[in-house]
Amino acid sequence: MTKEILYLKIAKAIAWQIKKGVWKAGEKLPSLRTISHENGVSLNTAIQAYYELEKEGFIIACPKSGYIVNYKPLRQSVPETTQPPVRFAGEEDEDLITEVYSSIEDMSVTRFSLGVPEDVLLPIAKINKELTKAMYSLPGNGTRYEDPQGNSRLRKDIARFTYNWNGNLTEDDLVTTTGITNAISLALSVIAQKGDTIAVESPVYFGILQLATSMGLRVLELPTNPVTGIDPDALKKVLPQIDLCLLISNFSNPMGSCMPDEHKKAIVNMLAERDIPLIEDDLYGDVFFGASRPKPCKAFDEKGLVIWCGSFSKTLVPGYRVGWVAPGKFKNAIIRRKHIHQISTPTLNQEVIARFLENDRYENHLRKLRHELHTNSLHFAQSIRDYFPEDTKLITPQGGFMLWVELNRKADTTELYRKAMQQKISIAPGRMFTLQDQYRNCMRLSYGQRWCPFIEERLMLLGDIIKKSL
Amino acid sequence: MTKEILYLKIAKAIAWQIKKGVWKAGEKLPSLRTISHENGVSLNTAIQAYYELEKEGFIIACPKSGYIVNYKPLRQSVPETTQPPVRFAGEEDEDLITEVYSSIEDMSVTRFSLGVPEDVLLPIAKINKELTKAMYSLPGNGTRYEDPQGNSRLRKDIARFTYNWNGNLTEDDLVTTTGITNAISLALSVIAQKGDTIAVESPVYFGILQLATSMGLRVLELPTNPVTGIDPDALKKVLPQIDLCLLISNFSNPMGSCMPDEHKKAIVNMLAERDIPLIEDDLYGDVFFGASRPKPCKAFDEKGLVIWCGSFSKTLVPGYRVGWVAPGKFKNAIIRRKHIHQISTPTLNQEVIARFLENDRYENHLRKLRHELHTNSLHFAQSIRDYFPEDTKLITPQGGFMLWVELNRKADTTELYRKAMQQKISIAPGRMFTLQDQYRNCMRLSYGQRWCPFIEERLMLLGDIIKKSL
Repeated sequence: MTKEILYLKIAKAIAWQIKKGVWKAGEKLPSLRTISHENGVSLNTAIQAYYELEKEGFIIACPKSGYIVNYKPLRQSVPETTQPPVRFAGEEDEDLITEVYSSIEDMSVTRFSLGVPEDVLLPIAKINKELTKAMYSLPGNGTRYEDPQGNSRLRKDIARFTYNWNGNLTEDDLVTTTGITNAISLALSVIAQKGDTIAVESPVYFGILQLATSMGLRVLELPTNPVTGIDPDALKKVLPQIDLCLLISNFSNPMGSCMPDEHKKAIVNMLAERDIPLIEDDLYGDVFFGASRPKPCKAFDEKGLVIWCGSFSKTLVPGYRVGWVAPGKFKNAIIRRKHIHQISTPTLNQEVIARFLENDRYENHLRKLRHELHTNSLHFAQSIRDYFPEDTKLITPQGGFMLWVELNRKADTTELYRKAMQQKISIAPGRMFTLQDQYRNCMRLSYGQRWCPFIEERLMLLGDIIKKSL
Repeated sequence: MTKEILYLKIAKAIAWQIKKGVWKAGEKLPSLRTISHENGVSLNTAIQAYYELEKEGFIIACPKSGYIVNYKPLRQSVPETTQPPVRFAGEEDEDLITEVYSSIEDMSVTRFSLGVPEDVLLPIAKINKELTKAMYSLPGNGTRYEDPQGNSRLRKDIARFTYNWNGNLTEDDLVTTTGITNAISLALSVIAQKGDTIAVESPVYFGILQLATSMGLRVLELPTNPVTGIDPDALKKVLPQIDLCLLISNFSNPMGSCMPDEHKKAIVNMLAERDIPLIEDDLYGDVFFGASRPKPCKAFDEKGLVIWCGSFSKTLVPGYRVGWVAPGKFKNAIIRRKHIHQISTPTLNQEVIARFLENDRYENHLRKLRHELHTNSLHFAQSIRDYFPEDTKLITPQGGFMLWVELNRKADTTELYRKAMQQKISIAPGRMFTLQDQYRNCMRLSYGQRWCPFIEERLMLLGDIIKKSL
């Protein structure tokens, strides 16, 4: 019996108990650990069972108090696995991306389109303190060039955090970068040739599509489940056609899906059989709402083919541009490429983050951030249920910053963007996240802003605009 | 009559006067302005005339006191225009570059190989002060993403400085980058395709060779004069074969040559006729020892084909990684490429430099830096004359950080590097600066360290090692 079936079995049993009134609305459910012990299953399986129940509207996750039986069965339904046409050609809607980006610095706009945490969610005062300390402690006060591999103190700190998922990486396995986009750009430059085929999720973060097409790669968008991410069977079918693969394994942008360990392992293995490198964008892995950090695919990498990329831009300081890559067997090529194309990363920025990561500060900050974002996600989901059309589909993600909202087939979110902007509300239309003509009835909403009555009003107004436009 | 012949005419007249005793050893010569007025020529022509006299050993430039008649005719002679084989193939000596770089962080080594200013030459305390101010003045204390084109205050400041050479650029014409290497990398990515042919100086900074070959470009190294830079006639001959050109127009690395305005103009025009883009690396243009900043090729660009690149790494803060590019007609493509491959440059770093550039501080700092480097270059040249073999050739450059030293044909500077490293002296062997098998008897020495008796001792020791090895 596979784990996947196990979690469904547990979910069904609890759903039955809720329907029969064994667990009453508002009651607290057993902890994940209890479910895990009682059923003799892994914590991960227990989490998946609760995800399933949440998805079905039976329970709600409440930060710090666990899972609670929902008051009323939700009308919400969940988007299906996507079925993108598995073909080449197609292109980004560049004008649309530019249009949406043009509103990104306008503070008078409610930017549901913006995928970064708001200032108030960041430990800015503490970062400033470390900046002053870093300045005076670095040789030459940070004016000197850094080792091409990056600040070794920072690499050590990042390596230390991989203990969370038994990564067992050392500082020597890591290279720091100017943000995760720079990490992915370096990885692509080293492993991909013009004309190569890259497999990605669909929908997928438009920045990845732009990176791939700017380098002349052919992009294959694959069916993706909103809960479990890319479909391993779909990937298996195209293996003979692809040269590399790029996945946002944990809390993907824009779907919020998180690949189960089994999928991660299976995909790493099937790629390894054909020596196909996997670039893993793990930008959101640390922003989990469940009990523990999901493993990255890197955890299952035996051949050094997984290029694990991360960053502090979504959790600490977007503007410092500090990311990293664990390039596996491509390490020397990546260091060389980094050195040749940028000499080194900015010295001071990395030292500040390195200092901050020490003494549990990062873990404490992440705990607060996760809690706030989780609460936000629940508020957003509730408002969408309350104010958006009845047939709106969404799933409350188990981590990250985004909600993927699927409207009625007739909806056109590009048009909706323009209408909403007249009311100073910015959304990210679905068409941005694909090279094909699809997802026109979908949109990505970011909940990286602190919840307040104003945000609820804006969601209500957005719901009105949607209803009027249909 | 061309300007080139004019300056030679003036130089010859003064040389004749010195030989005849009109001007006596130790006497101060008329100022450049006087020469310019008296002869009815441009300041630039006067400078070139004095360069010529200095090169011939008739005069010595003394910072703050002008030009002085030399006490004794120097035995020094100047390297000839290089004659690299104009052909493809050839490759970097990657192992050698790695070997030389491995000593770059060892502070116990006297690093004549290092092309950056020593800490003591940088205004670190003032930079630190601006860092603290920038931190508190930026929205979100510098944690937010920056405009993809870069900090507009910094762009404005850089634009302001182009008034020095009638650049008339505005902030809108500029894009900031993570150092100049990033600027050149962006430019190459946007204008060059794999297999394209790029014309460069020879010898040329190895980083440029690495960039070009890492992108699959074919490199044509062209004959280069140690005083006037790349030979326009040689470039003219290969025009039908090349797709782009890259020149370090002012105080080139490693030769120290500075193209006369006439050459700049002629080259810009001949490239423009064929719509060939020119990437101009103007990293050292602000570190001039003469009366005024030499113009970049950009000053003669009418078609927007010159991509002018600069940086603060050699004058202010290497570790901050702040550079810029004025991409001409390629501006939108460069901004797009920058945004797609790195989102934005680090916010805080750019603001610090922007603040520093205001209120004349940069100009004051540059004045001191130029004076110190000029003095250094003269000390170095004197020590080389005193301690190196008689047949050593070099020219004291009129700006920048480097001396190009040509030894006897029998010398092997790669071997010399290893012998010198046993005495903890690091040099940059000539073979690093070409893809061909040439310049094995040459080396680059940087004078970016503050002059002191110890440096003189090290140069004396280096001279001994050279003499023993021949």
